[in-house]
Amino acid sequence: MARPVRVVVLGSGSWGTTVAGLAARNTPTLLWSRRPETADEINTEHRNSRYLGDHVLPDNLRATSDILEAANEADVLAVGVPSHAVRDTLSQISNEVRAWVPVLSLSKGLEPGTRQRPTEIISECLPGHPVGLLAGPNIAREVADGLAAAAVVATQDEDVAAALQPLFASRVFRVYRNTDVLGCELGGVLKNIVAIASGMADGLGVGDNTRAMVLARGLAEMTRLGESMGANPRTFAGLTGIGDLIATCMSPASRNRRVGEAIARGLTVDEAVKELGQVAEGVKTAPTVMELARDYNVEMPIAAEVEAVVAGRRTPADAYRGLRKVQPGGEDEVA
Amino acid sequence: MARPVRVVVLGSGSWGTTVAGLAARNTPTLLWSRRPETADEINTEHRNSRYLGDHVLPDNLRATSDILEAANEADVLAVGVPSHAVRDTLSQISNEVRAWVPVLSLSKGLEPGTRQRPTEIISECLPGHPVGLLAGPNIAREVADGLAAAAVVATQDEDVAAALQPLFASRVFRVYRNTDVLGCELGGVLKNIVAIASGMADGLGVGDNTRAMVLARGLAEMTRLGESMGANPRTFAGLTGIGDLIATCMSPASRNRRVGEAIARGLTVDEAVKELGQVAEGVKTAPTVMELARDYNVEMPIAAEVEAVVAGRRTPADAYRGLRKVQPGGEDEVA
Repeated sequence: MARPVRVVVLGSGSWGTTVAGLAARNTPTLLWSRRPETADEINTEHRNSRYLGDHVLPDNLRATSDILEAANEADVLAVGVPSHAVRDTLSQISNEVRAWVPVLSLSKGLEPGTRQRPTEIISECLPGHPVGLLAGPNIAREVADGLAAAAVVATQDEDVAAALQPLFASRVFRVYRNTDVLGCELGGVLKNIVAIASGMADGLGVGDNTRAMVLARGLAEMTRLGESMGANPRTFAGLTGIGDLIATCMSPASRNRRVGEAIARGLTVDEAVKELGQVAEGVKTAPTVMELARDYNVEMPIAAEVEAVVAGRRTPADAYRGLRKVQPGGEDEVA
Repeated sequence: MARPVRVVVLGSGSWGTTVAGLAARNTPTLLWSRRPETADEINTEHRNSRYLGDHVLPDNLRATSDILEAANEADVLAVGVPSHAVRDTLSQISNEVRAWVPVLSLSKGLEPGTRQRPTEIISECLPGHPVGLLAGPNIAREVADGLAAAAVVATQDEDVAAALQPLFASRVFRVYRNTDVLGCELGGVLKNIVAIASGMADGLGVGDNTRAMVLARGLAEMTRLGESMGANPRTFAGLTGIGDLIATCMSPASRNRRVGEAIARGLTVDEAVKELGQVAEGVKTAPTVMELARDYNVEMPIAAEVEAVVAGRRTPADAYRGLRKVQPGGEDEVA
């Protein structure tokens, strides 16, 4: 293509801003922010101090608070608003996005009520567009700081993914492809719940063995649910499954891990979320995932305990005691 | 069975001693130590100070330095000597172990030269015995201290595994079953090499994203080799694969991780191993694994770089640069 592809990112949180910064190094990129002052700060000072402190963004990254301007400019649209805001945001621009423009989700959550994944909401709001996602073990601040990382672009059509890869890739940010959109997206949703369990384990002062057990058995139940829903089980052993889960459970910056840790220290869920000051998707997603587990008749003992703790029906210590009561059988079985 | 099953553990290193301590809580258990002074210390002071500091072992755990006595007593034999010593140790008792006695490997390594796994060596030295292994994310000291952990007993015959489970399990040590002996055993061998890569990454000061990438892509190449050799790919997403890999890469105590970190700090491999003062199986296994990769025609970019560093042909910084040059494609492909 002679004319460069213009990337538009919706949502100026830490990850949306970081992805826009990656794209701006490769191609003209516009970031939409709900807050005019954030757009101004990015345009004039090349910073998003609310989410990325004094990190300097590329000079050529432009920002706007006019969502129609943003929608009109997009050759590729990346949706980085929180999952509960995806529908509202896209409904404002459903007549503004040009035909054929691929839309990538950057969000990791399920819509309460409908239980839809971000790519499903995108397909409803912007019918006919190729839809996919960019996901992986990507703590925003580390990627912004240029530390090496890898991610996956997942679209059903491998050619679309191959065309999108170079828009986000860099020497230190490796972008792989995958055609299992469902599996890649579920990994990002489900890992937040296991991250809360892992954070609770940290808060209770358990060891590396216990943490590894929580992650490996958490991966097993993520894979069970995903497979029942039609995903490729191997996807969960990749970057968007275990990779994202490991980064989330290890990083001091992970919100879901920190919420779990705070609850284990004795805070209520509300207090923990308030202390965090940001969205922890796993807290909202846990009850929705348990509804899915019931619908698909899949046992998810770790998610069930997390949901009970988040709902205030159980303490983290009781949850850990509860998990111990399950009788281990074959490794591919439930407990 | 009216008569209790007597467990014999060969090898009084940190893990052999810990497993013997687990078994002693369930059934009469005898631990063989090469060193008479260690056997004496266990019998009189209930300690193995060389490997477990002042940790107190169960009163009823007995120890001996007489390997024939140990072999004669076994209803179940667990082999916890380093993988390079398995053949020598078992050749001393090949006529002493009673028929039908199941033999479980606790070792994680390949025999240089023959490239055999511990269970293969056991089958050669003790033909006709059911052979399996006990493995998982088990940092010995944490298990000894009673922190929650999970492991897998893998034997081809599920009934044998089911009979062995309760001998080692406790309220905080969950024992699962798996019939994929090859996959479970390869996980423990291959994760040591990825742990060296992860340790090198830590030593180079990379972030949690990079570590998650190394683990997820390391798991991908472990799974590729395992599948080519006939293992079930899903085994590598379980406790003996990713679970063991996570614990090894996270634990400050892991020898393989520490060797990688020391090399990245500028030590030679010999200096790093000397500083450690204990066996780091991954250093010995890396060249053997690369031979297997060539035989089975499997690309293993991370293991190849680790092998080159261990052999002194490359610095850790060069190895990381080398990995960046690989062009990412589909997530299920090589790079």
